[in-house]
Amino acid sequence: MTIEASRAQGATPRRIRLGMVGGGQGAFIGGVHRMAARLDDRYEFVAGALSSQPDRARASAAELHVAPDRSYTDYREMAQREAEREDGIDAVAIVTPNHLHAPIARAFLDAGIDVICDKPVTTTLAEAMDLVQRVKRSGRLFALTHNYSGYPMVRQAREMVQAGELGEIRLVHAEYPQDWLSTGLEATGQKQAAWRVDPAQAGAGGSLGDIGTHAEHLGRFISGLTLKAVSADLQSFVEGRRLDDNAHVMLRYTSGARGMLWCSQVAPGNENALRVRVYGSKAGLDFCQEQPNHLWFTPLGQTPRLITRGGSAAGAAAQYASRIPSGHPEGYLEGFAQLYRDVAEQIHARWEGRAPDPRACLVPSVEDGARGMKFIEAVVESSRADGRWVDAQLAL
Amino acid sequence: MTIEASRAQGATPRRIRLGMVGGGQGAFIGGVHRMAARLDDRYEFVAGALSSQPDRARASAAELHVAPDRSYTDYREMAQREAEREDGIDAVAIVTPNHLHAPIARAFLDAGIDVICDKPVTTTLAEAMDLVQRVKRSGRLFALTHNYSGYPMVRQAREMVQAGELGEIRLVHAEYPQDWLSTGLEATGQKQAAWRVDPAQAGAGGSLGDIGTHAEHLGRFISGLTLKAVSADLQSFVEGRRLDDNAHVMLRYTSGARGMLWCSQVAPGNENALRVRVYGSKAGLDFCQEQPNHLWFTPLGQTPRLITRGGSAAGAAAQYASRIPSGHPEGYLEGFAQLYRDVAEQIHARWEGRAPDPRACLVPSVEDGARGMKFIEAVVESSRADGRWVDAQLAL
Amino acid sequence: MTIEASRAQGATPRRIRLGMVGGGQGAFIGGVHRMAARLDDRYEFVAGALSSQPDRARASAAELHVAPDRSYTDYREMAQREAEREDGIDAVAIVTPNHLHAPIARAFLDAGIDVICDKPVTTTLAEAMDLVQRVKRSGRLFALTHNYSGYPMVRQAREMVQAGELGEIRLVHAEYPQDWLSTGLEATGQKQAAWRVDPAQAGAGGSLGDIGTHAEHLGRFISGLTLKAVSADLQSFVEGRRLDDNAHVMLRYTSGARGMLWCSQVAPGNENALRVRVYGSKAGLDFCQEQPNHLWFTPLGQTPRLITRGGSAAGAAAQYASRIPSGHPEGYLEGFAQLYRDVAEQIHARWEGRAPDPRACLVPSVEDGARGMKFIEAVVESSRADGRWVDAQLAL
Amino acid sequence: MTIEASRAQGATPRRIRLGMVGGGQGAFIGGVHRMAARLDDRYEFVAGALSSQPDRARASAAELHVAPDRSYTDYREMAQREAEREDGIDAVAIVTPNHLHAPIARAFLDAGIDVICDKPVTTTLAEAMDLVQRVKRSGRLFALTHNYSGYPMVRQAREMVQAGELGEIRLVHAEYPQDWLSTGLEATGQKQAAWRVDPAQAGAGGSLGDIGTHAEHLGRFISGLTLKAVSADLQSFVEGRRLDDNAHVMLRYTSGARGMLWCSQVAPGNENALRVRVYGSKAGLDFCQEQPNHLWFTPLGQTPRLITRGGSAAGAAAQYASRIPSGHPEGYLEGFAQLYRDVAEQIHARWEGRAPDPRACLVPSVEDGARGMKFIEAVVESSRADGRWVDAQLAL
Repeated sequence: MTIEASRAQGATPRRIRLGMVGGGQGAFIGGVHRMAARLDDRYEFVAGALSSQPDRARASAAELHVAPDRSYTDYREMAQREAEREDGIDAVAIVTPNHLHAPIARAFLDAGIDVICDKPVTTTLAEAMDLVQRVKRSGRLFALTHNYSGYPMVRQAREMVQAGELGEIRLVHAEYPQDWLSTGLEATGQKQAAWRVDPAQAGAGGSLGDIGTHAEHLGRFISGLTLKAVSADLQSFVEGRRLDDNAHVMLRYTSGARGMLWCSQVAPGNENALRVRVYGSKAGLDFCQEQPNHLWFTPLGQTPRLITRGGSAAGAAAQYASRIPSGHPEGYLEGFAQLYRDVAEQIHARWEGRAPDPRACLVPSVEDGARGMKFIEAVVESSRADGRWVDAQLAL
Repeated sequence: MTIEASRAQGATPRRIRLGMVGGGQGAFIGGVHRMAARLDDRYEFVAGALSSQPDRARASAAELHVAPDRSYTDYREMAQREAEREDGIDAVAIVTPNHLHAPIARAFLDAGIDVICDKPVTTTLAEAMDLVQRVKRSGRLFALTHNYSGYPMVRQAREMVQAGELGEIRLVHAEYPQDWLSTGLEATGQKQAAWRVDPAQAGAGGSLGDIGTHAEHLGRFISGLTLKAVSADLQSFVEGRRLDDNAHVMLRYTSGARGMLWCSQVAPGNENALRVRVYGSKAGLDFCQEQPNHLWFTPLGQTPRLITRGGSAAGAAAQYASRIPSGHPEGYLEGFAQLYRDVAEQIHARWEGRAPDPRACLVPSVEDGARGMKFIEAVVESSRADGRWVDAQLAL
Repeated sequence: MTIEASRAQGATPRRIRLGMVGGGQGAFIGGVHRMAARLDDRYEFVAGALSSQPDRARASAAELHVAPDRSYTDYREMAQREAEREDGIDAVAIVTPNHLHAPIARAFLDAGIDVICDKPVTTTLAEAMDLVQRVKRSGRLFALTHNYSGYPMVRQAREMVQAGELGEIRLVHAEYPQDWLSTGLEATGQKQAAWRVDPAQAGAGGSLGDIGTHAEHLGRFISGLTLKAVSADLQSFVEGRRLDDNAHVMLRYTSGARGMLWCSQVAPGNENALRVRVYGSKAGLDFCQEQPNHLWFTPLGQTPRLITRGGSAAGAAAQYASRIPSGHPEGYLEGFAQLYRDVAEQIHARWEGRAPDPRACLVPSVEDGARGMKFIEAVVESSRADGRWVDAQLAL
Repeated sequence: MTIEASRAQGATPRRIRLGMVGGGQGAFIGGVHRMAARLDDRYEFVAGALSSQPDRARASAAELHVAPDRSYTDYREMAQREAEREDGIDAVAIVTPNHLHAPIARAFLDAGIDVICDKPVTTTLAEAMDLVQRVKRSGRLFALTHNYSGYPMVRQAREMVQAGELGEIRLVHAEYPQDWLSTGLEATGQKQAAWRVDPAQAGAGGSLGDIGTHAEHLGRFISGLTLKAVSADLQSFVEGRRLDDNAHVMLRYTSGARGMLWCSQVAPGNENALRVRVYGSKAGLDFCQEQPNHLWFTPLGQTPRLITRGGSAAGAAAQYASRIPSGHPEGYLEGFAQLYRDVAEQIHARWEGRAPDPRACLVPSVEDGARGMKFIEAVVESSRADGRWVDAQLAL
């Protein structure tokens, strides 16, 4: 069991000073980032451009114990002023709608501040590629919160694939059905729905960008495979909706492995049913996000085994990403917190002039984000071309 | 509860005399057909061409209490002789490898004998279309044992779709993974594997014909939709295998609904994991063959409900197809037996000059078989054309 | 895979001629016995005292293809006449309310006819002990249909305990909740309810006799332990009910192992949720009747494993009791049929002058029935004595 | 959805200053308390007597950002000094072995400091009753971390019982099996095991005090019933163990309802499988701690329904205790955090001179603790008296 995972030897470093752009009152994912940052006590939350509306920004800051002089309404001003302060933020979390990710990230990278950014990384591949370059030049961290990769059992799965326990990978089946957009919710003014179905704010993908990229990343993260091409069929089932609310995709990987990916926001009864199954010549793995403490391992010709978080079969990667003993379920926030803990380890290591723990280096990167954008663009292109196989590789 | 489902009023008709072609010692599905035929006591098994090898035919017949003079080695002889007997068979079950279905069915139809045939109906669409015509002309019954349509919860699902409980159908997701061909089993001489991967005996589809047609039929049976076109990617992962052992298919239905279908015989940990999910504008349904007494019903915005066979929500169609009370699990043989019971009801009704119970008229037909062949041929063509959408409609 | 499990070498013996007492129109368990007897084709059903009401007896016989001259209204007459016929029945199935089991069994045993009897064996321990003696003297078979012991995964569990895979057994937890008597159903005239809550017909136990004896037997069957004493608390929650509808029992076994047993017919949401868990010093086992194709095996300090019927870990006892491959669920009727198949093997072996297959010798016996009666009487006595531990051992 | 549950209107109050006794390096539950306290950002952790060993106390404090002058080795000194400081702690968390709970709680209550105490409240009923009086006199808060009562679905269950959705409660079945003490782990020097099996540190109950009290409390919390009497059978299966490692208990409630309780630390395959089932005349409820986002609701004669945290059927109490939307699993830490959030609301309300939100008033109290001690003592007495029913009521 691993409680508040032990630090590297030596003095405990100070907490990382964290700011946030977006995430004011009424937002969803901003609160998640803050809880994730708090859980392992490696951050203190000290500044924010929580809203572009002054009143909402001020009220949100007060509620979150942010000092008034560190509550901003403009992220550019925030980047500049925080960079100038002696006690300025070390890192910023970007939790706005998609189309603002790129400009905000640029502003903070340019100011020498590490970036933690919600997914998808940008709204276009071009922006993403630009960001890849800037991150490289800046020498700053860029962490993309494909949070499901923070689950211990996901890391366990990846570790087992890498150890060869599945043999040669043949199949990756990823699915991510939800049901909350089964009706025209955006027409009711519901804020979460409205921007997600607006191409100007969400980009070229609807369900594809919102959840399809999670599924694509998770399949890639676990299998270790490189996507080669996609053949897709996108639908917008709700009348008047301008972006896809359901996507069917066939996948080919460079190794010869194949896959299917389904994401949907119109599948009644599915809350957040992300699932990835990987099959190789020797065994299979099955992970469902809604039961994140479990991982099925099915070696060919043997009895199926239920690996549990913290149980006897959990390896080093899973143990590193756990806080409490087996049987005490961890969930979404703990998985999210793992990315924050990993980023903290990377920052602390830099401060201390040492290499970070390699188990903390699985945090999705800006390159992962660019691959996600390539995936979206290839899927959209394939669907427009009536399912023609479209190249989805990205040289980085 | 429905025990040995009650007969139509009046005298109990005599048992139907049943013969079989194929299904001798060492076979698999023949024994299933016989158990299914026995379960509800509507048949007596009296004749068979159980093998083309005289010794094996004789031994098999003796073991099954078939009189020596009604054990044949040639199905043509059997059709002729049984048609001549006063006490000749009323119906024949065809349980040979696929390529023999058509000629055997023709022989018995020509002899005026009702046919119960295992799936897939033939090895080519042309053969299937020929059979469609012959069945029509003959006035005989032709029942195709897509046995999963005999499960009470499958019939419940279909009934709920027809009653509009799901609203307009948007999505059909069918999958049927197995793992028993993950290695080159056919090279070891295993009989079940050998003919299934041989194009001469199995037809153009490997996993596609063996299990993909079940998934396609079940999706169609439950949803009531008509397939319009397919885009497919077939694979043969095991080296040297001449037919597909895995198939990825995207589906379009004539109504505008879409779907995905996956069948595989190389997915370790999956025994016989046929599953169909249907989503409409108002609700979803989820059925897994390995838990056939359960059906999830998920109305949008309401609590998910677990409908159980024999439970309070089970409707007329499900009750008709049940034998024992809820909580006493029925399984594969009972589902199979339901098709035999339904055929018996149809035959008895004909004898008695009355219309059959409409609940007994859901047995898959030769037309269903032809649609299955069209599906296989369209999928194979699409895969060869690198995923081009191929018309899969069949005018009948 | 085992299809229509192969017979001993040599000529196939003739089918066993089976009669039945009870089980006419409107009955439940009689139909189950007949389906079970048919499934493996070792019996032909030829005679019956299906009802004591002449009209119902006659109609029931006709429906079941029993010849009019072998339809009786008096079981004594049936026993005598069938014993005299050249083609008289070899065995009788007794499926009446509990209080008639003993006199009917005596009549057929005295006539030299093998007996298959539903549970509980009698309504009192004294009757059961008398029956034990008569069976011994008669040399006839007496099979008690504790049908859940026919499930392949139950036999697997027993085999694993005997092989020492659990180490020393410490705990047996058996529970059997249902909900169908949550209201005063008996007051509505419902036939199944009425006799089960009437002490004159059911004996001293209500839920205890109806389902508690199943739980007690299954715990004993799997664990191989001998019950030593019980401490119990019985309840009748529905007003006016004269027998228990819920029972809480603590168990002590002679080995020092302990257990708990709960049976209930007033637990809403439970259809037929019989479950037995056994824990030893080295591992645990968990079997749920409603998922009879599965068995959880949990070795201490290792990953939990899901053993499936027909899967790679299923041993000899399970294979013997299976008909179809893994992934094709077997259910309640197949489990019941296994007892009939086992009895057939024992009878055929006697006819052929050979020892029966030892795997067919797990059928519950009249001694098992007597132990069940001892259990009921001890539980009732303990509950009346406010939970005092009461001796439940039975010297046989 | 409820993110960082909204505060009462008006200015956000300052964070509560929290100290801790116990919970230094190598401890388990202390880290859990700290993560729980951090999650909702209502506390700052500023002082501790984290160990009685000076070195370990100092190192633990440094790791947790506690200032050196607020790191103590003696809880009495800590209580006194913190009470004297202007910025002294508002509340203390007690996370030591059981036998120290009472003296530490007394010290802090006497110093006017609110107490959050791990369970079981003390090692004897007498101590607990003394504490009840002191809490009353002090006017201080005393929160007992029966953390499972913080789960949204547990509060949902309680709310449904109170709303009469189950009708009159008849049965409570609580079980809490684990397996980690299946061997003599205490002999190896494992710290968590050692004190739990030592009567001097743990009290009269082994598994009973460690987990049985959780099960007892949870059954009472959900059902709202008052325990009347118990009949018990305790075991110590591992040789040489001085306290029970398995307990079987039959329960009687004052209303006439009955129950069973099983707790075990020797049941291989069970990690932390706390489960409570409640059955009434109209419906049943089933909650399993390892799947805390789910609650089965089974109204009699209707389809079983799966209530999900955040789903459409979740009521006010559940929503209040949630942080993130349905489908994003919350776990053990979130449930634990809910108690800390509730305590914060009570303290903030006191500071602000208003009544606390009633939904925050479900935190287990010192009286709950005393009832738990009465339960332990009654169970131990009953077991010693060979299962005699022993009064378990406590007038408070």
